[in-house]
Amino acid sequence: MGSMLVDERDIRFVLFEQLKVQELCGNGKFSEFSGEVFEMVLAEALKFAENILFPLNIKGDKESARFEDGKVYSTPGTKEAYQRFVEGGWLTPCEDEEIGGQGMPHVIMTATHEMFFVNFPFMCYVNLTHDAAKLIELYGTDEQKRLYMEPMYGGQWTGTMALTEAGAGSDVGVGKCKAIRKPDGTYFIVGSKIFITNGEHDVAENIVHMVLARIEGDPPGTKGLSIFIVPKYRVNKDGSLGEHNDINCVGIEHKMGLNASPTTSLAFGENRKCTGYILGQEREGIKIMFHMMNVSRLEVGMWGQSVCSASYLHALNYAREREQGMSVAKPDPLKQVPIIEHPDIRRQLLTMKAHVEGMRAMLYYCGYAMDRTGVAEDDEERQRWGRLVDLLIPICKAYPTEKGVLFASDAIQIHGGYGYSSEYPVEQFMRDSKVACIFEGTTGIQAMDLTFRKLGMKKGKVFADFLAGMDEMADRADRLSGWKKYADQFRKTKNALSEIPSVLAEHAGKGTPVYPFLKATPVLEAAGDVVVSWFLLWGAVVAQEKLEALFLEKGAEDSARQEELIKENAEAAYLAGKVQSARFFIGGVLPVTDGKIEAIKWGDCSAWETQDRSFGV
Amino acid sequence: MGSMLVDERDIRFVLFEQLKVQELCGNGKFSEFSGEVFEMVLAEALKFAENILFPLNIKGDKESARFEDGKVYSTPGTKEAYQRFVEGGWLTPCEDEEIGGQGMPHVIMTATHEMFFVNFPFMCYVNLTHDAAKLIELYGTDEQKRLYMEPMYGGQWTGTMALTEAGAGSDVGVGKCKAIRKPDGTYFIVGSKIFITNGEHDVAENIVHMVLARIEGDPPGTKGLSIFIVPKYRVNKDGSLGEHNDINCVGIEHKMGLNASPTTSLAFGENRKCTGYILGQEREGIKIMFHMMNVSRLEVGMWGQSVCSASYLHALNYAREREQGMSVAKPDPLKQVPIIEHPDIRRQLLTMKAHVEGMRAMLYYCGYAMDRTGVAEDDEERQRWGRLVDLLIPICKAYPTEKGVLFASDAIQIHGGYGYSSEYPVEQFMRDSKVACIFEGTTGIQAMDLTFRKLGMKKGKVFADFLAGMDEMADRADRLSGWKKYADQFRKTKNALSEIPSVLAEHAGKGTPVYPFLKATPVLEAAGDVVVSWFLLWGAVVAQEKLEALFLEKGAEDSARQEELIKENAEAAYLAGKVQSARFFIGGVLPVTDGKIEAIKWGDCSAWETQDRSFGV
Repeated sequence: MGSMLVDERDIRFVLFEQLKVQELCGNGKFSEFSGEVFEMVLAEALKFAENILFPLNIKGDKESARFEDGKVYSTPGTKEAYQRFVEGGWLTPCEDEEIGGQGMPHVIMTATHEMFFVNFPFMCYVNLTHDAAKLIELYGTDEQKRLYMEPMYGGQWTGTMALTEAGAGSDVGVGKCKAIRKPDGTYFIVGSKIFITNGEHDVAENIVHMVLARIEGDPPGTKGLSIFIVPKYRVNKDGSLGEHNDINCVGIEHKMGLNASPTTSLAFGENRKCTGYILGQEREGIKIMFHMMNVSRLEVGMWGQSVCSASYLHALNYAREREQGMSVAKPDPLKQVPIIEHPDIRRQLLTMKAHVEGMRAMLYYCGYAMDRTGVAEDDEERQRWGRLVDLLIPICKAYPTEKGVLFASDAIQIHGGYGYSSEYPVEQFMRDSKVACIFEGTTGIQAMDLTFRKLGMKKGKVFADFLAGMDEMADRADRLSGWKKYADQFRKTKNALSEIPSVLAEHAGKGTPVYPFLKATPVLEAAGDVVVSWFLLWGAVVAQEKLEALFLEKGAEDSARQEELIKENAEAAYLAGKVQSARFFIGGVLPVTDGKIEAIKWGDCSAWETQDRSFGV
Repeated sequence: MGSMLVDERDIRFVLFEQLKVQELCGNGKFSEFSGEVFEMVLAEALKFAENILFPLNIKGDKESARFEDGKVYSTPGTKEAYQRFVEGGWLTPCEDEEIGGQGMPHVIMTATHEMFFVNFPFMCYVNLTHDAAKLIELYGTDEQKRLYMEPMYGGQWTGTMALTEAGAGSDVGVGKCKAIRKPDGTYFIVGSKIFITNGEHDVAENIVHMVLARIEGDPPGTKGLSIFIVPKYRVNKDGSLGEHNDINCVGIEHKMGLNASPTTSLAFGENRKCTGYILGQEREGIKIMFHMMNVSRLEVGMWGQSVCSASYLHALNYAREREQGMSVAKPDPLKQVPIIEHPDIRRQLLTMKAHVEGMRAMLYYCGYAMDRTGVAEDDEERQRWGRLVDLLIPICKAYPTEKGVLFASDAIQIHGGYGYSSEYPVEQFMRDSKVACIFEGTTGIQAMDLTFRKLGMKKGKVFADFLAGMDEMADRADRLSGWKKYADQFRKTKNALSEIPSVLAEHAGKGTPVYPFLKATPVLEAAGDVVVSWFLLWGAVVAQEKLEALFLEKGAEDSARQEELIKENAEAAYLAGKVQSARFFIGGVLPVTDGKIEAIKWGDCSAWETQDRSFGV
């Protein structure tokens, strides 16, 4: 078996055979690249993930980040890995070459991140630093870029996003952190932040916090928030480090997982000596933060994907090696078979495989759509791709992270009692992954974003057009042997989903305005199922056409010979598996999705009608 | 708010108003008891759970069981709690009074165990000791009873079930542990066992292992296994402890959770000095073990229930206290409301509440059915109740344990970032509970038991009769105001479920004999949904009749006054909440169950048709 982290063949399939991302490399922005270059990049990324990041992640669960006397000590090896990562150009893969970047398409970075996210605590250093620097690149003055962005992109310093406060998590608008104007145009920052990832550590010599705070006198709510650059050590004009900026780490969280990732509580300006530098204009804090939102949410979704993929492949590997129980096909009580031969294990494995492949295509497609906004020929095209990104983001964030927890749990289940012991990494996958459903906007928040903002874009036309565009692939599937029933099921579910906006509006109009809120999460789940099934259908159509060509080439005319070829030939095995993923999802999952959609239509409002006291007295 | 472990009012409702277990106390076996006595027992049990077991469980996660030089040290306080537990009579609640028991109905023990299982590691001492002693009570010689059962039931010694070996988990029949006949009728025991809960500890002075082993020359497979009483210290004729019996603990597992529970690896007879005493006859090991199977599986299901209940109530309590975000009903960006006011939170809470109440009734009913076998007037009645128990057991084991993991995860979700930190117990609930889906027969094994053994009992008549008996409650619901649509949905899903056996047979006959294996787990899920919904419907019918009587009594004639009464009056609030649980489940969950049943009927076999290599190359 190949990698136990990602299926390289499937990554290549999605990128080059399904999405055909190499076609981005015509003239223009990505003309220096080619499919071959992309493949080299992916191969290097996988090596880095396999050899450095994954082992460091396993180690980090045991040798966790440590808090001592206000300082945080990272898992040994983190600093060295971070330096190598930066040297490899992985911190700024998509940035322009003038500022030291690689100028790659976003979709390729997305694929490499599926690999790199096998170490999420490590990637927090990468992503927070990148995102903080990106905000400075976009909104900073030339001096701020020189003083902060350059050493951050250069890997000498790291960054954080310091948003959350004790009373202000999902609702940042009630934050109490204050900024007090100083005569020189800078600000005193005073307040406490919690849950700040990498707020203190020993991986880099300085940490640049992006802090949301309210300037004295500014209005309450999100509109009154500004964003500040607040370095751990002040920075002199020449870029050298000055004195400590009165930011103290008062502790780190003890958590269910992500032990290598220090989740810090920070006190800013306890001695009134913490200086912040405003980024952009006053009261633009939320607008600036939100600039990174789509990318950040896609990244967390990619982490979910990464957990699903590694969980699947670890479970698959175990199911092939572990012998237990007798074959149901050829029962012999004295002969144990590898558990992959048991139908219930195969069902679990194919559930994981199908989701992993479908979500992979969905997430990469979202990255690809971001690239298309960058190479669009006109504004209309750019906006069209941009709206598609906006529509997909809540699904791309919530759906794979929810599946991450489930599939890590399934991987434990396939390992049996061993899966529950720390001898195997799957229990760590489950502990680590749960928080992905919470940060960067909980699943509930994604669901409301989808239901209220995204489904309604352009009066519902964006959603309707996206779904209508799926018919083409169902029509192509009709023409393949044995596919009519599957294509019909796909159309049935997809058409049922398309009615959801009017169903919600109808119920809301009939005296329960809260109805769409009650059903938002089920709507997201159902939409995720359909979108994933479309990507699987698309992949299956491409794969089956290729498989039939391969049968022809190898002279495998009858089904027995074809089954033989699938056994012997790795490419035939892969393509046949790709087709089965789609069949499994459409025939096994979409009928359940029909039920979910029926439940949305049903009209039960009991969760709203139940009085608070009736929940428990 | 009352207890954060269980809803006492709902427990009383299920026992005394829904199942009417006090009617067991007529003449005969339980005539010394009454509803009042049961209530006192339950109140005492909850006190013990709240004051001793739950705090000890939280402590045990941090101060875990420790292995040092072949010895295991338990969480401080365990030994004292165990002594108090035994003194309270909780170890032998259902045993006959002659042997020191309380002679209580099983259903009351089941209810107390929902409370006690808030400390599963502790209850492993209780249940393993009880079950091992019970086997000796049932199959032992008089001397074995005197020497082993008495000090075990008396709380001086504990017991284990030593079944699992490295290559023999779900499939115990391939176990390699050997028994060698000695001239005196005893046996040398030689072999290694793994995953033995409480195989070594400091809670009691002796540990009595029930060891499955194969006598030299006996046939392979489960039929060749015998079961032996193998004490840690040999026991002299007068009951005093003799020499160490050559059983060595070689280590304990590091696990995802259940840190207070030592999961040991044991080496028996490394020095050829380990003596075992056969229980029952040779080669009766599996038959004897299986005697406890129903009870053990119900107990693990109760643990799942206990996790669900505590997860729900912790989440509810947090949702009432935590203020975040503005009201959707009366939006004011400057006013944060308790998150229980958010529709998506209410949806999550009611999902948990409805399942918790429905599963509680199902599990108690299963305990009640066991009691009915004991007080049946004739053999036919006894067998009828016995078959009902057999039918329900796989659902009672698998369904609540699967929900345990999900609802602990949902409780974390409702706590937001705090839920992921060890400051709150919900993350421990999730880590602890996962293994409940694995031991005492994995979910997949329960699903096969249901699909192959249980659905087919008496040519399918047991299952068909059970479902047909549900119509009565649907008919009663028809007569309640606002219930017609709900009763119809219930009938629709229940009738669809009743077709499953013939659907499976049809597919199996059409050339895919493996089809029922592929769909076994979905069948168990769908069956669980329907059974739970029936108990909820039953509860709602009883509750709504009582609620209407209360409205009448209090003169609450119109709906506004009724809503007021529900606000003011705890009993009205409880009853109204009970009705809403059923509405939510039937209107929100059963349409999805319809989808699950459709997926079972659909006929996709891709998980079987996919070749091994196509899962990943």
